[in-house]
Amino acid sequence: MPSISNKGQSMPESPIRKLVPFAEAARKKGKKIYQLNIGQPDIETPKVALDAVKNNDIDVLSYSHSAGFESYRNKLAKYYDKNDIPVDAEDIIVTTGGSEALLFAMGSITDPGDEIIIPEPFYANYNGFANSSGVNILPIRATIKDNFALPPISEFEKLITNKTKAILICNPGNPTGYLYTREEIEQLAELALKHDLFIVADEVYREFTYDGVKHHSIMSIPGLEENAIMVDSVSKRYSMCGARIGCLVSKNKEVMTTAMKFAQARLSPPTFAQIAAEAALNTPDSYFEEVNEEYTQRRNLLVEGLENIPGVNVAKPKGAFYCIAELPVKNADDFAKWLLEEFEHENETVMVAPAAGFYSTPNTGMNQVRIAYVLKKENLTRALNILKIALEEYNK
Amino acid sequence: MPSISNKGQSMPESPIRKLVPFAEAARKKGKKIYQLNIGQPDIETPKVALDAVKNNDIDVLSYSHSAGFESYRNKLAKYYDKNDIPVDAEDIIVTTGGSEALLFAMGSITDPGDEIIIPEPFYANYNGFANSSGVNILPIRATIKDNFALPPISEFEKLITNKTKAILICNPGNPTGYLYTREEIEQLAELALKHDLFIVADEVYREFTYDGVKHHSIMSIPGLEENAIMVDSVSKRYSMCGARIGCLVSKNKEVMTTAMKFAQARLSPPTFAQIAAEAALNTPDSYFEEVNEEYTQRRNLLVEGLENIPGVNVAKPKGAFYCIAELPVKNADDFAKWLLEEFEHENETVMVAPAAGFYSTPNTGMNQVRIAYVLKKENLTRALNILKIALEEYNK
Repeated sequence: MPSISNKGQSMPESPIRKLVPFAEAARKKGKKIYQLNIGQPDIETPKVALDAVKNNDIDVLSYSHSAGFESYRNKLAKYYDKNDIPVDAEDIIVTTGGSEALLFAMGSITDPGDEIIIPEPFYANYNGFANSSGVNILPIRATIKDNFALPPISEFEKLITNKTKAILICNPGNPTGYLYTREEIEQLAELALKHDLFIVADEVYREFTYDGVKHHSIMSIPGLEENAIMVDSVSKRYSMCGARIGCLVSKNKEVMTTAMKFAQARLSPPTFAQIAAEAALNTPDSYFEEVNEEYTQRRNLLVEGLENIPGVNVAKPKGAFYCIAELPVKNADDFAKWLLEEFEHENETVMVAPAAGFYSTPNTGMNQVRIAYVLKKENLTRALNILKIALEEYNK
Repeated sequence: MPSISNKGQSMPESPIRKLVPFAEAARKKGKKIYQLNIGQPDIETPKVALDAVKNNDIDVLSYSHSAGFESYRNKLAKYYDKNDIPVDAEDIIVTTGGSEALLFAMGSITDPGDEIIIPEPFYANYNGFANSSGVNILPIRATIKDNFALPPISEFEKLITNKTKAILICNPGNPTGYLYTREEIEQLAELALKHDLFIVADEVYREFTYDGVKHHSIMSIPGLEENAIMVDSVSKRYSMCGARIGCLVSKNKEVMTTAMKFAQARLSPPTFAQIAAEAALNTPDSYFEEVNEEYTQRRNLLVEGLENIPGVNVAKPKGAFYCIAELPVKNADDFAKWLLEEFEHENETVMVAPAAGFYSTPNTGMNQVRIAYVLKKENLTRALNILKIALEEYNK
């Protein structure tokens, strides 16, 4: 029997998936589970996007341009311009989700054995894309006591070698909810220019910022044009995770010419989803205002609720729809399994994502969980109550 | 300025794309171009597939299962079973086009520096996926005088080393139109078992076989279950190239478990397109009968037409919708450019794909072109006439 690859063997399993069999078993027993573990919003997709797909007049569902519809890229450029991201249609390649944009970015700027520095905890699938590309991730610890702010630049400098190709950030952050300040982005920019590095910024949660704090894109820093690569997606912005439309954005022509070859090899991004994404740009502002208000309320409810549970410590998020909480348990992985396998309150339980899977350094964040506030407020309240009772029982 | 990767620098450009700027310039001058160069069918997508998307009742466009809709995989398994491919839903991962299935297959079975043997000429994007994966392609020459039949097994054995992981075939073949016989598939199977190799078979043109000749899948060979990996796509079968739905199929559990990790890292295949692909399985047989009849007529018209041009030699295809033709020119690349830049007949010209780009061995197939018969018969007739006149003028 032929053997699979070393790359395949070392391909990490998503930390969120590990609990899925336990959740399935719990559901079979009739237990209701409040899912705080995944970033699948319950918010409705804008009608204007869904209607555009319903009203399409396609006869032959043909390939689109490998960089995506030109009409879509033109409108996207205008949307970015309004968001202080001065780019043109030619600086954009439409991709199959933010995932593919990350793969194209890594493929264009790294060779096997190269290194990328990422503040941890970070979105776990970065590990998968790095493994696919043969790239090593060097983590730099951000801490809950600092709300997961950017670690000191001196810590980055300690790790930079001639193998370092890029610093990857997620802003606002999944799983931390941290929103980088203008000063932090400028510090990163200065570092990139000093050491000739790329900054790859995953900005898919751009619209989700709270308390009136502004998002600062890596693309908005003058002088950083050749070093800045942005990864984006419509998944969260318009609650269109299933569309699988993202994009890679850079003013660096060499990067875009190279990424375009990867894009051409896979022919084109999905057509129906591009129709939806292009129409979604016409979503009224009122939609975002309502969504933002809803998430702000959910966040407040969640953070207050968590703070009221004895022994729980939470980093208040300023963006995205996640937070990291420290629980009064030794091993959050065991606790999360226990919640599904053994615990129930009135035949209900909650599912959380153990945070250790978001750290690259082994045995880190063992008592932390990531909680996504993607549930309606009444369900979130109920889930918080269940979590409180569960922790009491677990620690008896 | 930070530099792009070696991988990025060596990423091959699609041979078909090279001519695009010349075509654009020709169109700007008002020249009409008959496109014989690309595999974009003009056939209408089945109504049942398009209607399913129009009639969707999605409110929240959420992620699907990373392996694709379970309902779709169940129906796909039945479709395969009818095609002498005995597989279950769990042997299938739905991918974003056949392209992603190829990437998952390469990622699961190869490490950088490994080798894959492919009969040439072959689908040029295999080069891109191999480059992305750091894999070296070793070509084995198939010849026009043999109609591009499988080269002798002894030729494969000469190339097999401990770095060889797989043999990749496309059946029926793009760009050759060759359909492997049962005996050829069995020879490959025997070779794979003898040397512990995978056979990766790209079978996206399964339905396009002519003259009553049957397609034999690599998945239909008893005893080859652990070695056989099939790549498939709905793009050509239902003229749904823009859907971007394919799949990876294997009975080898280790391969599928590994490929699933790559699938989970990119979250899910596109939802709207899965709806279309699932509904497309209800396409009536009459659709395929009509399409097959249409392509048979086009093929006959094309082959006869080419044979009637002095100096042209053509391999008669038994499947897919391409053929390779030898032209009475020294360099088909120069001729193809000339067709766009300098030639016109009644303000019209044709666009062909120089075949050298489908060979991995340098300076091979220099006088050959790939012609796709994806145009209506009247346009094909007109294009053949233009080609004939052009060759006369070019060789004056």
